[in-house]
Amino acid sequence: MKIEEMFNKYDLKFNRDDFLQELKTRQEYIEKSLNECFEKIKGYPPLIHEAMHYALFNGGKRLRPILVLEGARLAGGNPEDVVRTACALEMIHCYSLVHDDLPAMDNDDFRRGKPTCHKVYGDAVAILVGDALLTAAFELIASNAELSGISADNVVKVIAEVSKAAGSRGMIGGQIIDLGTEGIDIDYENLQKLHQLKTGELFKASLKAGAILKDMPEDELDLLEKFSYEFGLAFQIADDILDVKGDQNLIGKPIGSDEKNNRTTYVTIFGVEKAQKLAIKRVENCFMYLGNFGKKADFLRKLALFTICRDY
Amino acid sequence: MKIEEMFNKYDLKFNRDDFLQELKTRQEYIEKSLNECFEKIKGYPPLIHEAMHYALFNGGKRLRPILVLEGARLAGGNPEDVVRTACALEMIHCYSLVHDDLPAMDNDDFRRGKPTCHKVYGDAVAILVGDALLTAAFELIASNAELSGISADNVVKVIAEVSKAAGSRGMIGGQIIDLGTEGIDIDYENLQKLHQLKTGELFKASLKAGAILKDMPEDELDLLEKFSYEFGLAFQIADDILDVKGDQNLIGKPIGSDEKNNRTTYVTIFGVEKAQKLAIKRVENCFMYLGNFGKKADFLRKLALFTICRDY
Repeated sequence: MKIEEMFNKYDLKFNRDDFLQELKTRQEYIEKSLNECFEKIKGYPPLIHEAMHYALFNGGKRLRPILVLEGARLAGGNPEDVVRTACALEMIHCYSLVHDDLPAMDNDDFRRGKPTCHKVYGDAVAILVGDALLTAAFELIASNAELSGISADNVVKVIAEVSKAAGSRGMIGGQIIDLGTEGIDIDYENLQKLHQLKTGELFKASLKAGAILKDMPEDELDLLEKFSYEFGLAFQIADDILDVKGDQNLIGKPIGSDEKNNRTTYVTIFGVEKAQKLAIKRVENCFMYLGNFGKKADFLRKLALFTICRDY
Repeated sequence: MKIEEMFNKYDLKFNRDDFLQELKTRQEYIEKSLNECFEKIKGYPPLIHEAMHYALFNGGKRLRPILVLEGARLAGGNPEDVVRTACALEMIHCYSLVHDDLPAMDNDDFRRGKPTCHKVYGDAVAILVGDALLTAAFELIASNAELSGISADNVVKVIAEVSKAAGSRGMIGGQIIDLGTEGIDIDYENLQKLHQLKTGELFKASLKAGAILKDMPEDELDLLEKFSYEFGLAFQIADDILDVKGDQNLIGKPIGSDEKNNRTTYVTIFGVEKAQKLAIKRVENCFMYLGNFGKKADFLRKLALFTICRDY
C-alpha cells in the first residue's frame, strides 16, 4: 500500500500531482516575494549583494516561508500580510546552509547541484554572506510592521520567537551538537534532540510567526508548536531514508553521504522499514494536532503527508 | 599643547583621570548588565554558551553599549531602561570580531592579549558563536519591550535601525570593502567610506537606538547621526595613529600591523601629524552637533575627546 493511501481515512483527497501543483503555486509566490524583498535590502557595495542573491536563489523548496503563510491562514488572516516575515525565515534558512557548507563545517562543494557559496565567492565572502542574510532577516521582519493589519506588538513577539528558535538554544545549538556527534554513535533520544533543535525549531518558529502576526490565541499556538515538532521529525526521518534510497538527480546531492560520514540516522538505528513506520506515526500525530483547524489546515495536512512520500 | 587643552574653550573641564573614572563606572555597569543578559540567553547545549561567554567577556571598551545609554540620556530618559539594547549592541560588536579574526578573514590569533575564539574552540565553533551572538542581540532587543517605558513601536524602529547598520549596506558592507582593499592602495574618499560603514554605522545605530527607545524627535536624531559619523572617523584616525605610535602592552595587540598588512590608513595617506589634526577637526564637529543638548551631553563630549587622546 502506498503511504498516501494510509491517510484515506482522513478524507483528505490527496492527489500527488494536484498537490505538487498547489505547492508550486506557493513556491512561485515565494520566489516573486523574495525578489521584491531582496530589492529592499540590496545596495552598495555590489559584491556582497550579488553573493547574497546567489545564496538565496538556490532552488530551495521554500518550506519555511510556506509555513509562515500557512500560520497566518490558520489564524484566519491574509497570508500576503505576513510575506516579509515569510521571506525572512527563508533568509535564515539560507544563511544556515551557507555557513554549514563552509570548509570549517561540513565542507560541501555542491548544494542542489550548484557549487556552494564559498566555492564561488571564497570562504571570507561566504562567512559575510551568511551574516548578512541573518541580519537582513530581522530587518525584513521589522519592516513587516509597515504592512496592513500587523501590529508592532506582534512583530516584537515574532522577533523574540524567531531569534530564540534560530539561536544558541535552537538551530545553532543543534548544529553544535551535530558537530560533536559526527562519527560518534548517539542514541535515539539524542538524535531526536539534535533534529528538534537543528531543524524543528525553525519550522516551529515559521509556522508560529505567521500565526502570531495574525493574533492567534495561545492555546492554538501550542497546537502549532506540537504539530511542528512532529512535522520536523517526520521531515528528518524522510531525509535519512532519501539518503539511502533516493535518486541523487532528484535530490541534487550525492546519496549515501550519511554512511560515508559515519553519521547516526533513523535508518542506522531502525533500518528503512521501521524508520518509515515512525515517519507515518509522526504524520498521524501532525493530523491529530491540526484536528481543531478544519478545512483551512488541509494544505498543511497534505504538506505533512508529502514530506514523507517526497522523492526530493 | 596637549589635545585636551585645545578644547578648553568649550568649558568642558576635561580631566583625564576623572574621565577614566566616569568611564570605568559605566563599563562596570555594562559588565554587570551583560552578565545578567547572558543569563537570559544561555542554556542547553553548554559548549556554545561557554564559547559565547568567552567571546563576549573579552576586556572590551564597551563603547557601543555606553553610546546606547547616552542616547537614552540625551532623549531625557533613564539609561537603565535601555540596558538590554545596550548589551545587544555589544553582542553585535563581539560577533563581528569573532568572525573577523577567523583564518578565512583576518586570521588573528590574539585579541586584547587573549587567544581569539577560534584558537580556543576551533573554526567551526567560532563561526557558530558569531552567528549565535548576532541572533541573541535581536532576542535581547525584542526583550527590551518588557522593560518599563519602552514601547513595541520603538523597539521595532530600533531593530530596523540596528539591522540596517549591522547588515550588508552597513558594517558587513564595510568588511567586504576591507577584504577587497588589503594590499591595494585606496584613496581618501574610499577610506572614509570603508570606515563609515565598518565602524561608523554601528556607532550611529548604538547612539540612535537608545534615543529612539526614549522617543527622541527626528530632528534631534539627525544631529546624533551626524555626531556619530564624526565620532566614528575620529575614532578610526586615532586607531590608525595608535597602530604606529601606540604601546602594544596597553593596546593588547602588536603595533605595526597596518604596515605589515600593507593597509591604507589615515597615517599612510597623511602622516601622523596631519592625521592628528584631522582627528581634532572631527571632534570639533562632534561638539558642534551636540550644541543643542546642553550639559547632559557632557559625557559624550568628553568621550569624543578621549577617543583621540586615548592610549589604548
